[in-house]
Amino acid sequence: MATAPQCREAILAIKPYVPGKPIEEVQRELGVKDVIKLASNENPLGPSPDAVQALREASERVYLYPDGNCYYLKNALAEKLSVSTENIIVGNGTDEILKMLAEAYVNPGDDIVVAEPTFSEYEFAAQVMAGRAIKVPCRSFRHDLKAMAASITPRTRLVFICNPNNPTGTIVGQVVLDSFLKEVPPSVLVVLDEAYADYVTAEHYPDSLAYIRHGRANVIVLRTFSKIYGLAGLRVGYGVAVPEIIRNLNRVREPFNVNLLAQAAAIAALKDEAHVKKSREVNIEGKQYLYEQFTTLGLQYVPTEANFIFVDIQRDSRTVFQELLKRGVIVRTGDIFGYDTYLRVTIGTPRQNERFIQALREVLGRA
Amino acid sequence: MATAPQCREAILAIKPYVPGKPIEEVQRELGVKDVIKLASNENPLGPSPDAVQALREASERVYLYPDGNCYYLKNALAEKLSVSTENIIVGNGTDEILKMLAEAYVNPGDDIVVAEPTFSEYEFAAQVMAGRAIKVPCRSFRHDLKAMAASITPRTRLVFICNPNNPTGTIVGQVVLDSFLKEVPPSVLVVLDEAYADYVTAEHYPDSLAYIRHGRANVIVLRTFSKIYGLAGLRVGYGVAVPEIIRNLNRVREPFNVNLLAQAAAIAALKDEAHVKKSREVNIEGKQYLYEQFTTLGLQYVPTEANFIFVDIQRDSRTVFQELLKRGVIVRTGDIFGYDTYLRVTIGTPRQNERFIQALREVLGRA
Repeated sequence: MATAPQCREAILAIKPYVPGKPIEEVQRELGVKDVIKLASNENPLGPSPDAVQALREASERVYLYPDGNCYYLKNALAEKLSVSTENIIVGNGTDEILKMLAEAYVNPGDDIVVAEPTFSEYEFAAQVMAGRAIKVPCRSFRHDLKAMAASITPRTRLVFICNPNNPTGTIVGQVVLDSFLKEVPPSVLVVLDEAYADYVTAEHYPDSLAYIRHGRANVIVLRTFSKIYGLAGLRVGYGVAVPEIIRNLNRVREPFNVNLLAQAAAIAALKDEAHVKKSREVNIEGKQYLYEQFTTLGLQYVPTEANFIFVDIQRDSRTVFQELLKRGVIVRTGDIFGYDTYLRVTIGTPRQNERFIQALREVLGRA
Repeated sequence: MATAPQCREAILAIKPYVPGKPIEEVQRELGVKDVIKLASNENPLGPSPDAVQALREASERVYLYPDGNCYYLKNALAEKLSVSTENIIVGNGTDEILKMLAEAYVNPGDDIVVAEPTFSEYEFAAQVMAGRAIKVPCRSFRHDLKAMAASITPRTRLVFICNPNNPTGTIVGQVVLDSFLKEVPPSVLVVLDEAYADYVTAEHYPDSLAYIRHGRANVIVLRTFSKIYGLAGLRVGYGVAVPEIIRNLNRVREPFNVNLLAQAAAIAALKDEAHVKKSREVNIEGKQYLYEQFTTLGLQYVPTEANFIFVDIQRDSRTVFQELLKRGVIVRTGDIFGYDTYLRVTIGTPRQNERFIQALREVLGRA
């Protein structure tokens, strides 16, 4: 048998993404029936009922290609965000926009600058394009923007700021971001990944869309319907930037990248402000509960502006993860982020949070 | 205002894809209410009712991320196709797999070999990776495999055979393909895009999956749920190859590329063999009708093995396209394929076909 054609050298170094374990997989592999997933920062209240209704209504039209231009969704977003439809690109999840950013801007040997720890898909996208990620360690779990600015080289094309940061839940504030942007050359595109923006309660969180409205050409803001809007399964995220950036991303976009039901459901979800409000309240309530429980258990955690908490359980996180799994609770281990004794746990409904704490108590021998 | 960051030089040459006009767009722009779309080779019978049922049932789970591994869909496909799940990769439409092929195999300056005319997304994918498409003219609307083999250079990484070919509807037969594959070096991956395979009636159509079952390492077969399976709106296609090829494609795959409803609906559609059979029958019937009508009108057409016909209307196709549009019939102009007097029309339901012919008669002054 002949050997298969050789793949590109550059992609050999890519480490496979470690996804949150799907509920069905745990049920299948461990035989546990009642499983809760606090591993992927999904909305524990589920999708907006209006979104479910919209996709059911559209379900008989799935034989037609989706609108490649996302006309109605872009119009709804433009109105909501007070920008023009020319400022918007929609992706098959923000994941796809990350890849498009690398495809549009990163040549082999170019740099991107990212925090460490942060969301792994920034580095992935750069690696696909044979780019190199310069990783700047966080300070006290926060982006070190001074060090990140100092890490920019003539080869740097993209800087990623995950805000709030995954997995730490920390934010970069308006003043710090403003001065950072003053230091970044106009040739470098700053990507503000705001997947968790709707959970933020801190008042100094940046009004990032104002940069775009004022025509700032080297910033793109990314948002998603996968988190508070409860549509992770449908894959829809978007980017907001000046039209020239959007046009460049459109060059590398597949013509029908966003599916028809995602477009229909996202429009409906966007309008259901009550569901977003309720989701935010449940998150604030759950956050307080988990903070208290962690304190009672003597566990240090990173105060969060998102819908997850990065907590030091003072044991090997993979062992604790497996033990929690046996009790039907899926969380995320910190080792994939370089923190072997940490867990990242999504804030769930009150019942889910209680169940997690109960299972954690058992596993830590504190039941 | 500072200029925006520069995009990669390589992507400046990419021509935007020309999609079939969406029905809603025609209604919006021309104020025509009753519009039929014979422009994108969709299944005119719509999706399988079982698929619609499956996605409706799954609709409340869209707040969860999809299974990134497509476990159940891959199992269903593996069983149906008599291959292993390790032979399969699933994409956000075959479009995404085309891009992944380029990302996995095409370095800057590498070549791909394609027919001309053929589906434009092969060249698009190569261009994103700064590769170059060597275009080999068809002979009598068919792939010229001898010339394509002769066009392979040391820099050639991928050869694309669209079979049946879009837009011509012609096929490459088993014997011709077998001898072609003997000429292709093992370092070159041959991509057999079989999006329209289920419409083929010719007996000499290749049993391409047998190559994979026999462990042939430099062939990948692409199929889709967008055509006869009626799920274009959901975006789901797949590739079948030896595990090493699949592993390389998985390196560049985004973790949650296939949405949750697509996976659920595809499994159901795959099982509904009656819907596929009926769709095939409607296509054969419509093909005969359109052949007869074209002959009556004195128009030459390319005999098709797919669900569309490439027909020479002996006038500027963009003018005819616009006139058909005013009458609520969307087709595709041949100019985008380099055939200024051709239309590519999807075979529809009997009523749609009649409506198209009536409109065409009017436009050609033969009513």
